[in-house]
Amino acid sequence: MILSSLEIVLVRPETPRNVGSVARAGRNFGVERICIVGSPALLQDGAARATAHGAEEILDRIRFCADLEEALSTHVFAVGTANRVRKGKLPPLEMPHALVPELAEASRSGGCALVFGPESRGLTDVELGRCTRLLRLPTEVDQPSLNLSQAVLLTLQECWRAAKGWSQALPPGVPETASAFMEPGGSLPTFSEFDLLLGKLEGLMERTGFRPYAGDPESFRMAARRSLSRGRFERRDLRTLLTIAKTLERLPKPRSEG
Amino acid sequence: MILSSLEIVLVRPETPRNVGSVARAGRNFGVERICIVGSPALLQDGAARATAHGAEEILDRIRFCADLEEALSTHVFAVGTANRVRKGKLPPLEMPHALVPELAEASRSGGCALVFGPESRGLTDVELGRCTRLLRLPTEVDQPSLNLSQAVLLTLQECWRAAKGWSQALPPGVPETASAFMEPGGSLPTFSEFDLLLGKLEGLMERTGFRPYAGDPESFRMAARRSLSRGRFERRDLRTLLTIAKTLERLPKPRSEG
Repeated sequence: MILSSLEIVLVRPETPRNVGSVARAGRNFGVERICIVGSPALLQDGAARATAHGAEEILDRIRFCADLEEALSTHVFAVGTANRVRKGKLPPLEMPHALVPELAEASRSGGCALVFGPESRGLTDVELGRCTRLLRLPTEVDQPSLNLSQAVLLTLQECWRAAKGWSQALPPGVPETASAFMEPGGSLPTFSEFDLLLGKLEGLMERTGFRPYAGDPESFRMAARRSLSRGRFERRDLRTLLTIAKTLERLPKPRSEG
Repeated sequence: MILSSLEIVLVRPETPRNVGSVARAGRNFGVERICIVGSPALLQDGAARATAHGAEEILDRIRFCADLEEALSTHVFAVGTANRVRKGKLPPLEMPHALVPELAEASRSGGCALVFGPESRGLTDVELGRCTRLLRLPTEVDQPSLNLSQAVLLTLQECWRAAKGWSQALPPGVPETASAFMEPGGSLPTFSEFDLLLGKLEGLMERTGFRPYAGDPESFRMAARRSLSRGRFERRDLRTLLTIAKTLERLPKPRSEG
């Protein structure tokens, strides 16, 4: 695990005090990059600074983005956090021992986002659908859910321990397994490269008259994203797929039926 | 690990919001007993309730004690938390993987306290000296230290995982080992039984003219406590020692030299 590849992405956080606590937790476990999807105005009342306690400089370096798409664009892997799945199209929720080894491998290839939703409602299905994998932190009860900064802390501890070579804590009945995410030396495509492919595929499909958008414009994209993420493509695989898509674009457009 | 044997003991907490967060973390990981060494006035402004979020009933059941001695009296085991040791007389700081199995065994015998100090300075040496074992939660940096409720959360997660049969996360180079704390079916003495023995020993030593108290009245007691805690006495062992002490008390008192 390369801790310096990790970025904590807070989507529309509601409580400045939590942002300060997240910065402090980041300092505690060596993850010093935070991105907020939202407005810098959130931090203007000084409440975040009051809880940052020794991690104020992390607050000063926070990156602000307009939406999750922008936040993820240059990353190669994103872990979304949730305590219950709401839609069949989304990837399954995985526990830390299953997901952290993959994250560790991805962190050798490029930036990785740890994505946390707003305190009151968590990430939307569309936002969860943008992530490569979904993490559930197992607890005794799901309600109350973990506080935002507590969820960040537990996630960072897992990452930090992986970085320091600790063994994984495994639930009963789970054997120690080796993960084989990608070949040594392989590199992962970024989210924006991935979106380029998705856009081209959608364009090609539209030419055939395919209209997946009626009623639920994000639905096809979520399903496509899920399928392609499961393939665990390296960057070179994505380049091949892009070449295919670009070639198909040269096909003559069908004449409009109308 | 019997989670219902565990009690979170907060010594002179300074921030009501943290107490609320501790209650929520307790709920998340199935530890619903909190004791505060301090005054109930701390919770009167409603700030604790604001962060408890679904764990308000735990706040309503908080036990208040005047000092740590009272808080521990009926417990059989106490884990003190610190991020650096300040005195040679104290037990060494141990990491969760070393300490949690012992705590799990003790929890089958009686109440066990997880003791956390005030936000600003942590537990005093005297308070740390009262605990059976000392826990350090390993992090990237010691400063800023973990926030109080964050430290509680990480400790509770370790306990919860042990209760659910998870394997221990081990730092690199640490082999999996079996602990042999006490015989099956053995039971541990409570802190007040322990203090009874200590008091008798001190009384006997004073008769001989021993005066350990000059300058540092708690110093001998801390050293004695440390020695006796390392012995890992079960309750029946302590009874034997008490019998010895009571017998020695029948010895004639030496005539005063003055």
